[in-house]
Amino acid sequence: MTPKTYPPLEDLQIRWKKVQKALKESGADACLVANNVNIYYLTGKIFAGFVYFPVEGDPIYFVQRPVDKEESYTIRIRKPEDIPDCLKERKRELPSVLFLEAGQLTYNEFLRLQAVFHPAATGDLTPLLRNARMIKTPWEIGQLRISAQQHVKVYEKIPSVFRENMRDIEFQYEIERLMRQNGSLGLFRTYGSNMDVFMGSVLAGKNAGMPSPYDFALGGAGLHACLPIGASGETIRSGQTVMVDMAGNFTAYMSDMSRVYSLGTLPDAAYEAHQLSIQMHNRLMETGKAGVPCADIYQWSLKMAEEAGWGTHFMGTVQQAKFVGHGIGLEINEPPVLTARSKEVLRVGMVIAYEPKFVFPEVGAVGIENTFLVTAEGMKKLTILKEDIQELMS
Amino acid sequence: MTPKTYPPLEDLQIRWKKVQKALKESGADACLVANNVNIYYLTGKIFAGFVYFPVEGDPIYFVQRPVDKEESYTIRIRKPEDIPDCLKERKRELPSVLFLEAGQLTYNEFLRLQAVFHPAATGDLTPLLRNARMIKTPWEIGQLRISAQQHVKVYEKIPSVFRENMRDIEFQYEIERLMRQNGSLGLFRTYGSNMDVFMGSVLAGKNAGMPSPYDFALGGAGLHACLPIGASGETIRSGQTVMVDMAGNFTAYMSDMSRVYSLGTLPDAAYEAHQLSIQMHNRLMETGKAGVPCADIYQWSLKMAEEAGWGTHFMGTVQQAKFVGHGIGLEINEPPVLTARSKEVLRVGMVIAYEPKFVFPEVGAVGIENTFLVTAEGMKKLTILKEDIQELMS
Repeated sequence: MTPKTYPPLEDLQIRWKKVQKALKESGADACLVANNVNIYYLTGKIFAGFVYFPVEGDPIYFVQRPVDKEESYTIRIRKPEDIPDCLKERKRELPSVLFLEAGQLTYNEFLRLQAVFHPAATGDLTPLLRNARMIKTPWEIGQLRISAQQHVKVYEKIPSVFRENMRDIEFQYEIERLMRQNGSLGLFRTYGSNMDVFMGSVLAGKNAGMPSPYDFALGGAGLHACLPIGASGETIRSGQTVMVDMAGNFTAYMSDMSRVYSLGTLPDAAYEAHQLSIQMHNRLMETGKAGVPCADIYQWSLKMAEEAGWGTHFMGTVQQAKFVGHGIGLEINEPPVLTARSKEVLRVGMVIAYEPKFVFPEVGAVGIENTFLVTAEGMKKLTILKEDIQELMS
Repeated sequence: MTPKTYPPLEDLQIRWKKVQKALKESGADACLVANNVNIYYLTGKIFAGFVYFPVEGDPIYFVQRPVDKEESYTIRIRKPEDIPDCLKERKRELPSVLFLEAGQLTYNEFLRLQAVFHPAATGDLTPLLRNARMIKTPWEIGQLRISAQQHVKVYEKIPSVFRENMRDIEFQYEIERLMRQNGSLGLFRTYGSNMDVFMGSVLAGKNAGMPSPYDFALGGAGLHACLPIGASGETIRSGQTVMVDMAGNFTAYMSDMSRVYSLGTLPDAAYEAHQLSIQMHNRLMETGKAGVPCADIYQWSLKMAEEAGWGTHFMGTVQQAKFVGHGIGLEINEPPVLTARSKEVLRVGMVIAYEPKFVFPEVGAVGIENTFLVTAEGMKKLTILKEDIQELMS
């Protein structure tokens, strides 16, 4: 009864064509894919092994584990050094220009795979695949919609698990349980070597302004020096906000969504800044469409924050994130990034999390985050749920 | 009230001396550390940045994030390219032989850091640090003891969260909640590029024998093709076992522990194989001590399994793991590995998870896992809890 969902072949073929086109344009003869996320992207499953993908023809799955005989396109290997002989047996030419995931393989892994093929030239497959993954296929969009629906369903129940005198971490693990009860897979995939995180974050009161080592929108001190992010164990107090920002990993494709809850009444500034974030979302809905530069979205968001007098609260205080949103999919931090230096423009099929947030020391964080799909008709919001600050225990 | 615990300086100094000795023996002038786990090992905290560690003198912490002015040994940088000038300002010579984490940095990161220093020679820091981390310091052992104590405390409560007609995943997330309530940090650190896992696994019935892509002792089909490991969503049935194998991440240092629960009565073979696993643990307690080859432990474990007639059930059925245990610490899979080809011997200060397990298709997995500290007096079990199969709902 395992509810495994595989993409249909025709959806995989859309991805394959996109990747082959990019390989061809880069002068590659083939690529060898070893990273789990990229293997999943190209095959719809995860195995220990490699996808060998020539510029023409179908990809070949070289599988080390699991031992499993049902699969097509599968050649069983013991180690990557077995691949060239398998290709020769199938009358395939070895690639002269080979692309490898230089941004994901370790240095040792990269050298090992390079030595397996000793190609005349090696290129970096990482940006090419991240670029391909940026524009979602119909099936991927369907999966993101499922995640967003479940995400909303969980967030609707958040106030019901709050109890008086709760610590932020207690609130967080009750929310984690809601997520799991509603099908969260748990694992939260990020791009980048050092992006530690666990399911998402619940930030209450002044902890929302604590800087972290990580490249997320907000930080938090965390529970322990070995994971300095998110809830810090403090009791949630009256006059504070709680920002819930959990990853919607209900399918392989994650939605991203933040909502704010309050205990008691907040200072006016907190409500006003929260409304400004909602206005920013409305502006994105009105003006966002294919062709709009991602840098522009960052610039007008920052400008709106500054004109309202909250520039120093925008995206943090002590440490301010320099982006207001990011692409999402198999990983939480996919291209494009909505940042001042972005060269990207919005394109149909992109899925983007937009998260203009404000931090008020002693009160907490306000502002919302929604997941948007860029369509030919403009921005489609996938995370539809009440956006105002919700009072807990009211 | 954040319960952050930092190692005392004298404990860090033990680690520093060990690493400097190894660097010197390898002919290195310095190393540059960028991986989170290794940064934590050398500094007791995690930051975005680098630890520059010469063969003589204290390590220098180059910090990009968080913005934080309280720390000693800290030089704030914007990018790694700033490091050489900072060193020159402090009258430090640049290294001629530099060690970098070739087994953890991506290819691109490695090349970038190499270009920052353009040393005459570069060496691989990864095995050197993994080797240093293999022998735990007094403070690290203390942290492992705390994790093991909490781990036991949680496992004692496991039967209390079981309900009739539960699916394996439902049981799992109730156990996850127990873990979090008792201080689990959530994040489960592994070594290796593609070792996806979430908190641990709960394997019931025939799912225990499902092969996975991962290099863990047992597999499981998982809930989704994007995370093919662990609980599969099946209802736990009478006559089946449930093996609980969650990571004890209550401090930065993880204990590892498996216990087996049953619903109703099992076939005799399951009880007998479980007792054999307990006997293996007893043999390890009696014979394990500094100097014992890790390969020997694997060999006599396998032999005991084969002599009992359960060789084909040992460590899986369709796909069998070729190890019976592994070092643990900041990551779940540290050296040494208890495998036939290991060249390591037990040494005082090692912390090892020993997990001889048997899979009976249709029944499930049996056998236990405990965490042991190697002391001058022999093996010290850290995860002391009833080892028999416990019947649920009895």
